[in-house]
Amino acid sequence: MQQGLTRELSAEFIGTFILIVFGVGVNAQVTLGGSQFGDFFSINVGWGLAVAMGVYVAGGVSGAHLNPAVTLALACHRGFAWNKVLPYMVAQVAGAFVASALIFATYHEAIEHYDGGVRQIPGPTAEHATAGIWATYPQEYLSNFPGGFVDQVVGTALLLLLIFAISDEKNVAPKMNFAPVVVGMAVFLIGMTYGINCGYAINPARDFGPRLFTAVAGWGSGVFSAHDYFFWVPIVGPLVGGVIGGWVYDAFITKHHSPTEPVV
Amino acid sequence: MQQGLTRELSAEFIGTFILIVFGVGVNAQVTLGGSQFGDFFSINVGWGLAVAMGVYVAGGVSGAHLNPAVTLALACHRGFAWNKVLPYMVAQVAGAFVASALIFATYHEAIEHYDGGVRQIPGPTAEHATAGIWATYPQEYLSNFPGGFVDQVVGTALLLLLIFAISDEKNVAPKMNFAPVVVGMAVFLIGMTYGINCGYAINPARDFGPRLFTAVAGWGSGVFSAHDYFFWVPIVGPLVGGVIGGWVYDAFITKHHSPTEPVV
Amino acid sequence: MQQGLTRELSAEFIGTFILIVFGVGVNAQVTLGGSQFGDFFSINVGWGLAVAMGVYVAGGVSGAHLNPAVTLALACHRGFAWNKVLPYMVAQVAGAFVASALIFATYHEAIEHYDGGVRQIPGPTAEHATAGIWATYPQEYLSNFPGGFVDQVVGTALLLLLIFAISDEKNVAPKMNFAPVVVGMAVFLIGMTYGINCGYAINPARDFGPRLFTAVAGWGSGVFSAHDYFFWVPIVGPLVGGVIGGWVYDAFITKHHSPTEPVV
Amino acid sequence: MQQGLTRELSAEFIGTFILIVFGVGVNAQVTLGGSQFGDFFSINVGWGLAVAMGVYVAGGVSGAHLNPAVTLALACHRGFAWNKVLPYMVAQVAGAFVASALIFATYHEAIEHYDGGVRQIPGPTAEHATAGIWATYPQEYLSNFPGGFVDQVVGTALLLLLIFAISDEKNVAPKMNFAPVVVGMAVFLIGMTYGINCGYAINPARDFGPRLFTAVAGWGSGVFSAHDYFFWVPIVGPLVGGVIGGWVYDAFITKHHSPTEPVV
Repeated sequence: MQQGLTRELSAEFIGTFILIVFGVGVNAQVTLGGSQFGDFFSINVGWGLAVAMGVYVAGGVSGAHLNPAVTLALACHRGFAWNKVLPYMVAQVAGAFVASALIFATYHEAIEHYDGGVRQIPGPTAEHATAGIWATYPQEYLSNFPGGFVDQVVGTALLLLLIFAISDEKNVAPKMNFAPVVVGMAVFLIGMTYGINCGYAINPARDFGPRLFTAVAGWGSGVFSAHDYFFWVPIVGPLVGGVIGGWVYDAFITKHHSPTEPVV
Repeated sequence: MQQGLTRELSAEFIGTFILIVFGVGVNAQVTLGGSQFGDFFSINVGWGLAVAMGVYVAGGVSGAHLNPAVTLALACHRGFAWNKVLPYMVAQVAGAFVASALIFATYHEAIEHYDGGVRQIPGPTAEHATAGIWATYPQEYLSNFPGGFVDQVVGTALLLLLIFAISDEKNVAPKMNFAPVVVGMAVFLIGMTYGINCGYAINPARDFGPRLFTAVAGWGSGVFSAHDYFFWVPIVGPLVGGVIGGWVYDAFITKHHSPTEPVV
Repeated sequence: MQQGLTRELSAEFIGTFILIVFGVGVNAQVTLGGSQFGDFFSINVGWGLAVAMGVYVAGGVSGAHLNPAVTLALACHRGFAWNKVLPYMVAQVAGAFVASALIFATYHEAIEHYDGGVRQIPGPTAEHATAGIWATYPQEYLSNFPGGFVDQVVGTALLLLLIFAISDEKNVAPKMNFAPVVVGMAVFLIGMTYGINCGYAINPARDFGPRLFTAVAGWGSGVFSAHDYFFWVPIVGPLVGGVIGGWVYDAFITKHHSPTEPVV
Repeated sequence: MQQGLTRELSAEFIGTFILIVFGVGVNAQVTLGGSQFGDFFSINVGWGLAVAMGVYVAGGVSGAHLNPAVTLALACHRGFAWNKVLPYMVAQVAGAFVASALIFATYHEAIEHYDGGVRQIPGPTAEHATAGIWATYPQEYLSNFPGGFVDQVVGTALLLLLIFAISDEKNVAPKMNFAPVVVGMAVFLIGMTYGINCGYAINPARDFGPRLFTAVAGWGSGVFSAHDYFFWVPIVGPLVGGVIGGWVYDAFITKHHSPTEPVV
């Protein structure tokens, strides 16, 4: 068992590392490269493919949650062992943190070129903010509650509803290991549809790990206090939303499945 | 039987909910976010993936029509039970209506920020119209008949022709539950090719459900009277077009299939 | 046999109809909608998906050549019956012609709005040319020979080389009827890479059928004489290029296949 | 054996030819066509699909390395025969060189039109540089070491990590010959995330073969001396990075695989 857990945490760590090294990577490219090297659409595509690749790396070992909201929803609705929930979450945040550092190293000269060495956090007066490469910051018009919170609940509920569908063997679950691409499409889609309010974190590890990195790597504690301490929204919202989304899928689809019906 | 129908209507409801929560969601993001957060291409991609996800959610239970034009064409050409046609259509419109409400809640602060609380319907004098997020409105140059009607007949005929091909086991139907993605590609393609005249509703539930929502949620009855009562076009056109499209596929392909030929 | 040929020609007709109704459709949307409704990238995506859909419609019946260059290359290198070559080509051109007429009907009001009823052919003085929606016209700088001819030979050679690879059961041919999508990707790619010289017709039926339609539908014989009678280039170039591309694949890959090696 | 090697080198040659004929082709179209015919996003898509097509052409024969960094990593970590490493690399560079020449021929008139016959190399004073169509040139701000070197090591390490995952039968490796598309997605993703520093060569053959062509085809030896002899970076960096990436995958995933666990 202990050996099995090490193996799974190792996969969650490297899978979330892959998710962030590409997801935050596309943010870096678009922010630092100006409109010439990408836009919000490429950010959406990039995060979608980042998820797909993370699942290809970790899926066969740990199930590739890569997201505490997924882990919690699976514990609530699919019998994922509760004593593995916290270790999974820690491994996910750790993977996100290490990926954040690698991106900083790879893009160090580009960042210096862009902000002249002055690290800035998104806000009304920031002209060359770079903290938004790593963590999400909301639009000025958005309240943290209910605005941001509802946004994160809805976005993550949709994510889990789709994940439950895509992995439901009594539905039309994609076969032959094509599912990671379909999950990536789901995240791509959420980015195109629920991305403008506050950047569709829909994953506490995706947001907290990189935000913690920026706090210690030169941007300071402002990354937590920004927008009236917005940082809790992409942590709590997804955890709540994921559980709701799984429940909705089960209420409308799973509970009607015949227990004796053979899997097609 | 009754239990089976409840199960199917539940799936049609949540499947169409998913279609609209993402399809109208991408419209919201592009309208409210300005050119910075998407364009017509991302609207096309978004609706395509929205269809794919709706089919993954409902496909194994109800067949995932998600569209009255599909339901009618299947009843005419594929023996879908006529006594289920109306219930299916009601479930589809209901799913679209509820999704419309959720989008309104999620984007409420963004809408207030965009239009200052004044709800506007697309037209020559509207500068910050938002009703077009939910329902389709035609170009100024387009007549409702024949212009818009032909557009909707052609678009939906092509949709059903492709759906009939993609699900024809005696042709090259995609296997391993990849078909939902291919159907999504078909809708994406129709958006890129027949989207400019009047917004490619090609689905009465997709257009009527959200339009009804806007009528009761603050935009008023003008959503029905706009463009000389255009609203009937994306209802009647698709129903007619879908039946024609299925007939064309059968005339050119299905009727030549050998009845004894084994399925490859 | 005769019945089999009717069946195949019916499929080639409707499959090429689908290819053109979407391919020329995306051209129409981009030309008539201005930059707001698409660009060269969406044209590339649109033609790629148009090919994929055409193959899903016709593939299981006729093999879905949809292109005289494919038919000729298969006759030269894969034993496709020579007495079916000409009938296939005629069916392909006919499907392209009928699709062209349907697009004209669907976009009639949009065209009138765009050009004020004055049909124009692309050229140095045309400000609202629409003939380019249907057929390809080269850049001003390009010579017909060698410039355009080499372009069409190379583009079509690459197309056939890829088609031969994608359908080679002794290589990594995609299975489970995923191949139509991969062929569509190949055409999408050719559009992104060899599209600017003269519009990547790479298919005589795709170019000649719609060009003929414009000649009789109001644009006049100038569609043939334009750019010093360029119209022969996208007819002859693809036929030559397709044969060369198939030969290259066979020379580098097929001839090394072990005849006794089992298919993986 | 000798016959087997000829067969494999033939496939590596033509597979890398396909990779470059499309990859450098999309560069040509975007450079020569101005912003009208593509942008950095279409370059990313184009290279991704170019890889997919290269793998479909060569995969079943040689394994479709198409990249010396892949060949070296497979020799280090997967037992690929060391005596085939150099021949593979030579075949890859040769395929890239010949593809470069074909692109030059196909785009010759377009290039003349663009630069008026004056071949230029990217740099602060070049207004119509075309050498960047073939080989990569870094941003002005980037140092060759550590900047460019770290960039190439990281990019190629991620590529190999993903290739090892996608081909790991004890993980969720895509089946039914869908893997070439997923590898293409990986390269597309790397282009969107690690493309701005120095153009994501991540493949010594992709960079050196075309650069050598430009040196002999009219751009001169400046293609090697540019940016303080940057040309060694996309050769050495990928070779080092690929070996590291494979090692990381094995350390986090492979070494935990149970040797007796059946392949799912």
